[in-house]
Amino acid sequence: MDLLEGLATTRTIRRYTDEPVTDEQLTTILWSATRAPSGSNRQPFRFIVLRDGPRAAVARLLLGDAARRMWAGKSASDGYTSGSGAEPDSPKARMARTMAHYTEHFADAPVIALAALSRYRDANPFEGSSVYPACQNLLLAARALGLGAALTQIQMLVADELHEALAVPDTVALHATITIGHPAGHHGPVRRRPMSELVFEDGWGVAPAWAVDPPGTEFTQAGPPRQK
Amino acid sequence: MDLLEGLATTRTIRRYTDEPVTDEQLTTILWSATRAPSGSNRQPFRFIVLRDGPRAAVARLLLGDAARRMWAGKSASDGYTSGSGAEPDSPKARMARTMAHYTEHFADAPVIALAALSRYRDANPFEGSSVYPACQNLLLAARALGLGAALTQIQMLVADELHEALAVPDTVALHATITIGHPAGHHGPVRRRPMSELVFEDGWGVAPAWAVDPPGTEFTQAGPPRQK
Repeated sequence: MDLLEGLATTRTIRRYTDEPVTDEQLTTILWSATRAPSGSNRQPFRFIVLRDGPRAAVARLLLGDAARRMWAGKSASDGYTSGSGAEPDSPKARMARTMAHYTEHFADAPVIALAALSRYRDANPFEGSSVYPACQNLLLAARALGLGAALTQIQMLVADELHEALAVPDTVALHATITIGHPAGHHGPVRRRPMSELVFEDGWGVAPAWAVDPPGTEFTQAGPPRQK
Repeated sequence: MDLLEGLATTRTIRRYTDEPVTDEQLTTILWSATRAPSGSNRQPFRFIVLRDGPRAAVARLLLGDAARRMWAGKSASDGYTSGSGAEPDSPKARMARTMAHYTEHFADAPVIALAALSRYRDANPFEGSSVYPACQNLLLAARALGLGAALTQIQMLVADELHEALAVPDTVALHATITIGHPAGHHGPVRRRPMSELVFEDGWGVAPAWAVDPPGTEFTQAGPPRQK
């Protein structure tokens, strides 16, 4: 797969088949993740892979329970069953079904990788610059192998319990929970807002003439009307 | 370029030729950046590109001054001129020369892109999950076009001044400063710590048997002795 094509077509995959992810695939995916940059090349990121080990089983239960609770709260508070969500074929209703299935089966994802940051200074809003680039590399490497993945923050709901279950030091923060597996079913294209809403030049809010999405770009509902 | 090869070979590039980055290249690079995932696909990330505009000139002066100050402090505090740093051919001395050149010419980088996050909740250590994946896509897309880039946090030293110069709202935080240009001179391979120090399975600190770097992987000084 071509690099630019990979960047353009890597989307969140939340449904997986039962086919296992092999050791060889994990080597490629995690090695690619560790090629990412970090501040002063300190590489404070760490990944904890969960498959079928005894501690993974405990962590999976914690994460699965947290995922269900998260979605129960979010589906209510974000109105996924009201408005267009009440129409079964609306994008909102489809997303609600996808999320319900994803969170219900979260604990059973073929692989779950926790991304961690070994802190060398106080927690701050910018520390993710040394861990999330590695997460993005992980997602892209999975795509290169024909696998799919989803980056979530489910670990935030059970951080203390995960620290204990996996013997994670207090100086380490868990920054992401990534599910990985072979994609099941049909997956649509990457949909984003129009580039002119996201990219400015010379000052805030000023879209440059070159900020034009290439032909064929698909937009989110937040964007302009979709071309049929 | 192949996707996995791109992930493996994208390194920080801090020296640039005078050749300009074209509008077409910026379109590809920034569009690729905006394909990245974000929490609930809210896409709170924004990029402010600085080239030759009137406000870019002000921002460049602020950033260039901040870069010089940063390096003056870091080169002293991190002992870049003592120990092996006193030997001109040591990795430490080479890095010190690279950083001195980079920060001295920071303001003149062909393109500087500020990555911003439009906050919808209070600042927290995990918010970078919705902006740094897009930054990593930007670095990889630059690589795909034969350009080079460096992800820095220089904006942190002059955040208030940049907000004013570029009319950035108070609800927006500047999360990264990325320099972009055509690579000048020779650049070595990506060097990281051995995978077994960064990737665990089933618990903290437990390197799995499959966490083995592929043949030819080059390591940082923090890693094992380099094979000659």
